[in-house]
Amino acid sequence: MSLESLSIGSEDDKFENICSVEVSRRSPVASWLCAMLYCFGSYILADIMLGGSPIDYFQYNSHILLASAVWYLLFYCPLNLFYKCVAFLPVKLVLVALKEVVRTRKIAAGVHHASHAYHHGFFIMVIVGYVKGSGVALISNFEQLLRGVWRPETNEILNMSFPTKASLYGAILFTMQEAHWLPVSKSTLILAFTFFMASSKVVMTARHSHGSPFALIESWVCHLLFGSPLGGSEEDHHHPPAAAPSSPLKTKEELSDGARKRKAKKAE
Amino acid sequence: MSLESLSIGSEDDKFENICSVEVSRRSPVASWLCAMLYCFGSYILADIMLGGSPIDYFQYNSHILLASAVWYLLFYCPLNLFYKCVAFLPVKLVLVALKEVVRTRKIAAGVHHASHAYHHGFFIMVIVGYVKGSGVALISNFEQLLRGVWRPETNEILNMSFPTKASLYGAILFTMQEAHWLPVSKSTLILAFTFFMASSKVVMTARHSHGSPFALIESWVCHLLFGSPLGGSEEDHHHPPAAAPSSPLKTKEELSDGARKRKAKKAE
Amino acid sequence: MSLESLSIGSEDDKFENICSVEVSRRSPVASWLCAMLYCFGSYILADIMLGGSPIDYFQYNSHILLASAVWYLLFYCPLNLFYKCVAFLPVKLVLVALKEVVRTRKIAAGVHHASHAYHHGFFIMVIVGYVKGSGVALISNFEQLLRGVWRPETNEILNMSFPTKASLYGAILFTMQEAHWLPVSKSTLILAFTFFMASSKVVMTARHSHGSPFALIESWVCHLLFGSPLGGSEEDHHHPPAAAPSSPLKTKEELSDGARKRKAKKAE
Repeated sequence: MSLESLSIGSEDDKFENICSVEVSRRSPVASWLCAMLYCFGSYILADIMLGGSPIDYFQYNSHILLASAVWYLLFYCPLNLFYKCVAFLPVKLVLVALKEVVRTRKIAAGVHHASHAYHHGFFIMVIVGYVKGSGVALISNFEQLLRGVWRPETNEILNMSFPTKASLYGAILFTMQEAHWLPVSKSTLILAFTFFMASSKVVMTARHSHGSPFALIESWVCHLLFGSPLGGSEEDHHHPPAAAPSSPLKTKEELSDGARKRKAKKAE
Repeated sequence: MSLESLSIGSEDDKFENICSVEVSRRSPVASWLCAMLYCFGSYILADIMLGGSPIDYFQYNSHILLASAVWYLLFYCPLNLFYKCVAFLPVKLVLVALKEVVRTRKIAAGVHHASHAYHHGFFIMVIVGYVKGSGVALISNFEQLLRGVWRPETNEILNMSFPTKASLYGAILFTMQEAHWLPVSKSTLILAFTFFMASSKVVMTARHSHGSPFALIESWVCHLLFGSPLGGSEEDHHHPPAAAPSSPLKTKEELSDGARKRKAKKAE
Repeated sequence: MSLESLSIGSEDDKFENICSVEVSRRSPVASWLCAMLYCFGSYILADIMLGGSPIDYFQYNSHILLASAVWYLLFYCPLNLFYKCVAFLPVKLVLVALKEVVRTRKIAAGVHHASHAYHHGFFIMVIVGYVKGSGVALISNFEQLLRGVWRPETNEILNMSFPTKASLYGAILFTMQEAHWLPVSKSTLILAFTFFMASSKVVMTARHSHGSPFALIESWVCHLLFGSPLGGSEEDHHHPPAAAPSSPLKTKEELSDGARKRKAKKAE
């Protein structure tokens, strides 16, 4: 529960990136709904995947209230203090690391949950673990529709960001562990994966980098399996849609910068 | 059952607004599907929200047949008689009032149903009551996709119309009553809310007005809670997307007028 | 199971039509996901319609692996051999015929499955049989979104292709049989419908025709029931969206031709 709430806190810069400040002024209801989709997107998607009620998680009133409080403070706090606080780099690094801790636990829980429902459904385990780990990214296109925005080029399936990719690989690893194809215990795997994710994400956040640690391995595997050209793999992933001059990640970053500037100007 | 069918009848001008006459000529199947989404959108959405089958309501063959008959008469009746009949102002006012009676009952039933599934899930009760009350409006963007139309600016989450807002407030009231935070009995609340909704809607329909009775309270609450500028609240709600010269409600109205003219011309 | 796998094989030209070769190079994960949606779209939609888990079918690991193998061979086989093999006309005709055999069995199974869940839900039986038969076509707009493409004019609800229409009529026939309104046994109906579908589709594929065998009956029924102008029915179905110079089917065909040329060029 305490980790969950910290995870919500660390979701803040995501809110900034995507739920724009204008929506929060014009339509608080739409802004709150988007915020909830961002906080609980992974639970919603996993519930849909397993055939449950998509709003099942909303029965935990205290979690919803906590997330609503963070949403309220973030958008409507006087002098924009709360946002400045969580966007302060050292605080942000701690939140980012804790978020990856939560992400790993979510992937493991998703795989375990799916393995209870489908004992030998390895594909289902991977899918549920994957949406549990990267639900926020996968739900973002739907969330854009709610705000009347439609940018298909920021599609997390076509252009997977680092956390989305890592969730997929993590879900595959945890499924292999669940199927006893990996000679490690679950707790060891959780520990190792958490350490890898947290350190990667902290380094990437501190250096404002979007390069993926998987780039080298991926370019070799894609070359062998799918005949992709070697080396320039990272380029190939992002550049073909030439109409979009920058990668979606940059677009998000710019958006976020724009929102920050607007918020900063407002606060002055 | 008799009220339901009347509610379907009063949905007629909605059909006119949105399911265009061309679709009914080109593709009767698509037109019928849109009509069914409009009639039973609230049941479909509520079933999805509670994790059931979205077409669960379609097991009531008589309701579907009745709605299909209304759809058929509305679009294919010789001389356009049926449409002229239900669009005649006195008849329309009665249907509009009866529709609000049904809406209130639906909200109360939705909240009650959700409270059985989730005893303390107050957020779930509000959400289910809300989609039960305003399912038609919420499903309209999806229905547009079926007809190959995509107008994100007519988004009922971003620009809530009066019935959508009233459904949200109603769902909150009924949830508070269900949680025993309101010192009134359920029947009193249903009576009062029905009276308020029916009279507001009849007055608004008679005066062709789209102003919301909540405007004053909302502008004050939004000012206090969300720092929105006072007074010009209604302007602020609709004008910021400057690219769209008129509010979505007006657009719908114009559409409806256009459809009426086309139908009238055809009938001559 | 063997028929299923052949059905997957015959889905190949569909892949070609729609999952473009570029996506398979840029993002193998998105390409695989699209391929799975195409293979198992009918199961996914039917599970959603009956309120189950949309990924329920993914528990059959061997089916998924087989479909994945077909996908891999189709897109990444050296010299493009596999695609040339299945696109060779005699092979294609056999696959097309077998696919219609599978389609009829799917419609009958869908209607039967729905009749178990809802004993008198005739509308539900028709809907489930319909999505079982033409799930691929209905899911294609959603699948386009995954690839970042959005062409609402290729909407299978508005412009039903022959297999989609035949699935609807088949679902209605099987529902009438299930309700004992047709004086034929189920096996006779399956045999007759399979024969009709397979022969129609083989003739249409061999002659590269998109005319529907239903055109004459449809134009008379639409004239009587919906007042559509007689004779030019087929024109009326496709021409009104004048902005789109060719019917969606032609667009798909062109796309497919383009993809074939690109693949051929690559293979040289």
